[in-house]
Amino acid sequence: MVKKNNKKSEKYFQVYGINNCMPVLNNSSYKIINIFISEDKISKYKNIIADKNNIKKIHYLNKSIFHEKFPEYRTQGLVVTFNGDIIKEINENKLDKKNSCLLILDQVEDPQNAGQIIRTSECAGIDGIIFPVHNSFKITNSVLNVSQGAFVNVPLYEVTNISRTIQNLKNNDFWIVGIENTNDAELWSNIDYSGKMVIIVGSEGKGIRKNILNHCDFIGKIPMQGSINSLNVSAAVSAILFERLRQIR
Amino acid sequence: MVKKNNKKSEKYFQVYGINNCMPVLNNSSYKIINIFISEDKISKYKNIIADKNNIKKIHYLNKSIFHEKFPEYRTQGLVVTFNGDIIKEINENKLDKKNSCLLILDQVEDPQNAGQIIRTSECAGIDGIIFPVHNSFKITNSVLNVSQGAFVNVPLYEVTNISRTIQNLKNNDFWIVGIENTNDAELWSNIDYSGKMVIIVGSEGKGIRKNILNHCDFIGKIPMQGSINSLNVSAAVSAILFERLRQIR
Repeated sequence: MVKKNNKKSEKYFQVYGINNCMPVLNNSSYKIINIFISEDKISKYKNIIADKNNIKKIHYLNKSIFHEKFPEYRTQGLVVTFNGDIIKEINENKLDKKNSCLLILDQVEDPQNAGQIIRTSECAGIDGIIFPVHNSFKITNSVLNVSQGAFVNVPLYEVTNISRTIQNLKNNDFWIVGIENTNDAELWSNIDYSGKMVIIVGSEGKGIRKNILNHCDFIGKIPMQGSINSLNVSAAVSAILFERLRQIR
Repeated sequence: MVKKNNKKSEKYFQVYGINNCMPVLNNSSYKIINIFISEDKISKYKNIIADKNNIKKIHYLNKSIFHEKFPEYRTQGLVVTFNGDIIKEINENKLDKKNSCLLILDQVEDPQNAGQIIRTSECAGIDGIIFPVHNSFKITNSVLNVSQGAFVNVPLYEVTNISRTIQNLKNNDFWIVGIENTNDAELWSNIDYSGKMVIIVGSEGKGIRKNILNHCDFIGKIPMQGSINSLNVSAAVSAILFERLRQIR
């Protein structure tokens, strides 16, 4: 029933549940392929059903068949498949506003962390997330679904050369902050996040690569209070982004 | 090979990987039952193997048998099963220090969120986490493993009546802050977190129950900057706990 995608440049994705599906259905830049609705949830999704653009794409499935077809966590009886270019091109001109802030994820590989970071970034008003082509998470269904629809609103930029991207951003008056527990790092809350900022975090364990760290104007650390000494990277991002928000409000 | 646990009061847990297993092996309050080591990782775990207390408990498994037996994510060739009372009794006397801070999770059910919150709390120097017996996550292997060993260091308190617990803490000079997006809530960063504090968060979707919210001396909110309007509860906890840390440092 799912149509094959013949265009090589477009990618095919599948998202589950209200939080992921509604932003996709409401965004005209995506091409909706199929909408699967569990028959016991028809009344819940009457707005989707009433939209005449959707009529030919909706497939009503018996509840048990739906659950067999989509055994994944929390579909809420709604699954949407779509084509779309999730990854955007960086346009520095668009970022020329007072407190523009970009996040760079240097070799973060775990899709759960990537999805959570996209979600937190949307809530914290980040203008885009940059990640490298190699040794990084990819834009997969997992990442999109964990982001709970945030991928629709936060521009995601995949680049081949992070160093060159940072240099371009510096040339466009961005300041670069790396979050890394080095000896000479400042307390995360002593850094001024106002203005045009790039915040870089690395993968758990490996941290930010040295050649990337060398580009940073400031290095910030979050000192650990316990003994496990290992804050999850998405928890660290949350602490940093809401500290920025506190400062710029 | 795994011994049955006959004592009714003790619980039997299984943890994976270095971050979870080492704090358990190093904590004398747990009774280690079995230590499984993948044969290709023997040199990596020579310190565990050298400890004479462990000799009779170690099982060396061929790499492929190990992976069949423990197909879970990231065991790093090391699995420990143990007995122990993970849940502690609240002792208000122990909490009588300058900036004692407890976290209450009101009906947080998702084990991934619970584990992440335990991990973040350890890193942020929280003195304990309180959660209700009913309609809440339970202490399962999932929760422990997601916490990455933090459960060994952060006291976890399961209580039958959250309201009564809050009243006891108030009688012991704790201030109560609820994090909830109500109309009259203050900005999260305008709240003073110094002194003896209890911070309450609710489940995603449902929030803090009304009868619990009524106990709060302050209500704080984290305003959403995007349109998805849904910050993950563990990301919210991270933002709050590191704001507290910023203030009390």
